[in-house]
Amino acid sequence: MKILLIGASGTIGSAIEKELAPRHEIVRIGRTGADEHVDISDSDSIRKLFERTGPFDALICAAGNVTFAPLGEMTADSFALGLRDKLMGQVNLLLIGRKFANDGASFTFTTGITSIDPIRTGASASLVNGAIDAFVRAAAIEMPRGMRVNSVSPNVLVEAMGSYAPYFRGFKPVPAADVALAYAKSVEGLQTGQTYHVG
Amino acid sequence: MKILLIGASGTIGSAIEKELAPRHEIVRIGRTGADEHVDISDSDSIRKLFERTGPFDALICAAGNVTFAPLGEMTADSFALGLRDKLMGQVNLLLIGRKFANDGASFTFTTGITSIDPIRTGASASLVNGAIDAFVRAAAIEMPRGMRVNSVSPNVLVEAMGSYAPYFRGFKPVPAADVALAYAKSVEGLQTGQTYHVG
Repeated sequence: MKILLIGASGTIGSAIEKELAPRHEIVRIGRTGADEHVDISDSDSIRKLFERTGPFDALICAAGNVTFAPLGEMTADSFALGLRDKLMGQVNLLLIGRKFANDGASFTFTTGITSIDPIRTGASASLVNGAIDAFVRAAAIEMPRGMRVNSVSPNVLVEAMGSYAPYFRGFKPVPAADVALAYAKSVEGLQTGQTYHVG
Repeated sequence: MKILLIGASGTIGSAIEKELAPRHEIVRIGRTGADEHVDISDSDSIRKLFERTGPFDALICAAGNVTFAPLGEMTADSFALGLRDKLMGQVNLLLIGRKFANDGASFTFTTGITSIDPIRTGASASLVNGAIDAFVRAAAIEMPRGMRVNSVSPNVLVEAMGSYAPYFRGFKPVPAADVALAYAKSVEGLQTGQTYHVG
């Protein structure tokens, strides 16, 4: 398969590449440093990416930004980044990318445990993650040409505990390599409309 | 209690008023026709509403618009109404309204069954409903002064089947009066961070 991997340089993206590269052609995509560049918050940037990559069999997005801040300090503006980037960025990858996707292609998005297990400063993250998990369930039943869509919702990563530990006390961190397996299940399996909770 | 009821003229809003009015002071709020007017997609309109109503003990939002369309015809623009109105409208009612809310006040938002049980043309509705249900779980743990926040996620209403039936085949519709009970539980009980699924 030809797999577009957005966020290839990240902790999860690197683990996904390690898992899938032995069996598939991986196009590494990121804001900088990868084979191809994209800013998922910008529809034009997304469209141009697909014009360069051409047809594909799977798209994985392991990227997406949200604002973390105490709820007491948040205004509507605090939610704008998450809505534009991690939420509509991933939705737009499907809305725009489907025209370039081969029959039976899969889209796999990234959410996170905070949709069901919230943390301090995580209101925007929870909102965005819950939105994508629900979107995936809905979009799956209307996808044409056998196309599929799933999300992966990881716990905090072992590799991220250096900086994230104070926000995730009591959470059992999961290795990125375990999270990568869920992307393999989404891409190489046949399920659709699923959220894979890892850890 | 002094309860602000947004969407008071709607099918759910009317049932909520019938349930709560015998025990509480209800301020009926809507886009038109009610005691007070608000456009929840407009932060200024929300702020002015609270300046007129003054302090309150409970806010219920039984309003919110999203775009229904086949996924194949949707673009990013098709999601804009839902993000601005039902999603950020309800989030902004909390972000702005909390400054006017009495200690221990509750916020109760409205989502819908499509977050977990999707329908044709419902991708934006599912996304928004999932976002609010997750936001409620996250916001609840950071609310100050004993304030609470929940959502009510109704099945399709008996009263709405005249027009909605073709989109909800096989769903068991629920009477608006049953849905109203969940708002009473949220307002008059002590739970927080909950989504009450009705039907």
